[in-house]
Amino acid sequence: MEHHIRYDQQQQALILLDQRLLPTIEEYYCCRTTEEVIYALREMVVRGAPAIGVTAAWGCVLAAGEVSARAQSGGWEQALDPLLDALKNARPTAVNLAWAVERMRRLWKSGTPGSLADLSALWKAEAARIQDEDIAVNKRMGTYGAELIAKGDTVMTHCNAGALATAGFGTALGVIYAAHAQGKGITVIANETRPFLQGARLTAYELHKEGVPVTVACDNACALLMRRGMVQKVVVGADRIAANGDAANKIGTYGVALLAKAHGIPFYIAAPLSTIDRDTPNGTGIPIEERPAKEVTHVGATAITPEGVPVFNFAFDVTPAELITGIITEHGVLRPPYGDSIRQVFD
Amino acid sequence: MEHHIRYDQQQQALILLDQRLLPTIEEYYCCRTTEEVIYALREMVVRGAPAIGVTAAWGCVLAAGEVSARAQSGGWEQALDPLLDALKNARPTAVNLAWAVERMRRLWKSGTPGSLADLSALWKAEAARIQDEDIAVNKRMGTYGAELIAKGDTVMTHCNAGALATAGFGTALGVIYAAHAQGKGITVIANETRPFLQGARLTAYELHKEGVPVTVACDNACALLMRRGMVQKVVVGADRIAANGDAANKIGTYGVALLAKAHGIPFYIAAPLSTIDRDTPNGTGIPIEERPAKEVTHVGATAITPEGVPVFNFAFDVTPAELITGIITEHGVLRPPYGDSIRQVFD
Repeated sequence: MEHHIRYDQQQQALILLDQRLLPTIEEYYCCRTTEEVIYALREMVVRGAPAIGVTAAWGCVLAAGEVSARAQSGGWEQALDPLLDALKNARPTAVNLAWAVERMRRLWKSGTPGSLADLSALWKAEAARIQDEDIAVNKRMGTYGAELIAKGDTVMTHCNAGALATAGFGTALGVIYAAHAQGKGITVIANETRPFLQGARLTAYELHKEGVPVTVACDNACALLMRRGMVQKVVVGADRIAANGDAANKIGTYGVALLAKAHGIPFYIAAPLSTIDRDTPNGTGIPIEERPAKEVTHVGATAITPEGVPVFNFAFDVTPAELITGIITEHGVLRPPYGDSIRQVFD
Repeated sequence: MEHHIRYDQQQQALILLDQRLLPTIEEYYCCRTTEEVIYALREMVVRGAPAIGVTAAWGCVLAAGEVSARAQSGGWEQALDPLLDALKNARPTAVNLAWAVERMRRLWKSGTPGSLADLSALWKAEAARIQDEDIAVNKRMGTYGAELIAKGDTVMTHCNAGALATAGFGTALGVIYAAHAQGKGITVIANETRPFLQGARLTAYELHKEGVPVTVACDNACALLMRRGMVQKVVVGADRIAANGDAANKIGTYGVALLAKAHGIPFYIAAPLSTIDRDTPNGTGIPIEERPAKEVTHVGATAITPEGVPVFNFAFDVTPAELITGIITEHGVLRPPYGDSIRQVFD
């Protein structure tokens, strides 16, 4: 699963495993332009905060190629900035998107101007570095997180914070992979995660492929499973964590956190430091994306709501810091009060 | 919607609106035998506790026709009991099923034996009475329940406890219809209610048809909508209420009740007294049906989980009495402690 985001040097194209078609079809989506990368992000060909960041970094590389083709007579600097801005604004909630684009932009602006060819080479190396770093960071998070998992635990997860949501190992699922590799004999409950069904489609797909025992449950079953003592830990990812520890993640996560609290079950977030947005003091400042109605009204070709009936499709919600037992990062597990522990880890 | 369960005298058949195909296809399913009625109950051609009761009562009528055809030379009494038992055991959770079959059986056993033709006539009248009573009872519940709804409220409901779940008016939706008819200007949020999607498919369908403003939300959106102050009341139905007030209802209801509690939102159950099972002291005694995996793994023709991955499909959960603000019945709104208020209403 490490190659679901792959830059092809020869084709000068970004090749993405099309996550819209999983688990039944394994097909690749090829981006040759910034516009195609933005489309892939918007339509969720690729999704998951760290994966969005890596994809956007490669999107910058494609942008450099694009202005090169369009502006051979110079002026490429003026053409490049708007493309980076467009990439950055493809989706609003995951902070890793802006983080990756700004990291690329800083590298460009802070260096000697140089030629576009120089920048292109620099960016290719940097995008590859972001991708490699993400895997390394995930593996470190896995090691820290696995210490929180006991032998024989059943771990519930929501959405997909796995290899497919990152460069290739996973945040929440990284913790699970690490605990599994240590022989802890864990099992996983994947909440199906309506409407986009990342749990049923993606989490189940990758865990099953890696030989980790997984059972899919409708999001509605969460409270019953907890009540019956069938869940020992909850571990999920995050799209943006505010400076006080409030964490935006896939819609439904906040509900799962409240239910975990009600049943005395530890609730962990696993996310790299790049997910922490220190410029946003708390969760109320995190923009919540609303997505097209069709994700709710249809599953495949099947209409599940009557025509003419409106739907809500908020893609994320915010889990308040007080419901979070710990935040697993590549620098260890942060504990409440998160305002302090986040400040310390960055200092 | 009052005719979605209809006995056709001429055809000697029970005609059911096939709820599996809604909201896109309005087609009727015709039962001529007990076996076909059991199939319709099991496969959820018809569902909803009171509707199951009414259907089973008409199933008894078909059973009488069946033993008449099979045992013209006498002995029909011996043949009839097993058919009633089979009907009664078609599904385990909704107590209205056993309630209706036992009401029919009592009428048979307590009367003068008479002929099978006499019994058949008696049962036809009784099944029609159960059906009419259900509508009358729902309308009374609607009147009591509407008093709990304030002008301009947004009411959240889970699953379908409407006309389609009853003989023709609704329990939870009966309350909503009554409040709407009183010009309270309410709006409704229908949780889509995975896996069978009764909220998206059925609740949205009937409310939209009746002109009640309704928006469908994924079950995952529940906590966010509550947090944002977009929900003033929750009203749901029930499949079985224990003597202490613990209430079994569609999977996910218990979670919604916990989330309502966490946000200080009143949570009401609307159910006729026939849903109260005084022989079951508390929720732990209520059997929870597990249904086929395919309801979770597929939506229409679309597979949403990878092959070989197991799923949970518990069809119901139990909401503990302490999370229930009131139980709306045809004899008024019961309040905690429910052990006492339930005893009183039956005495």
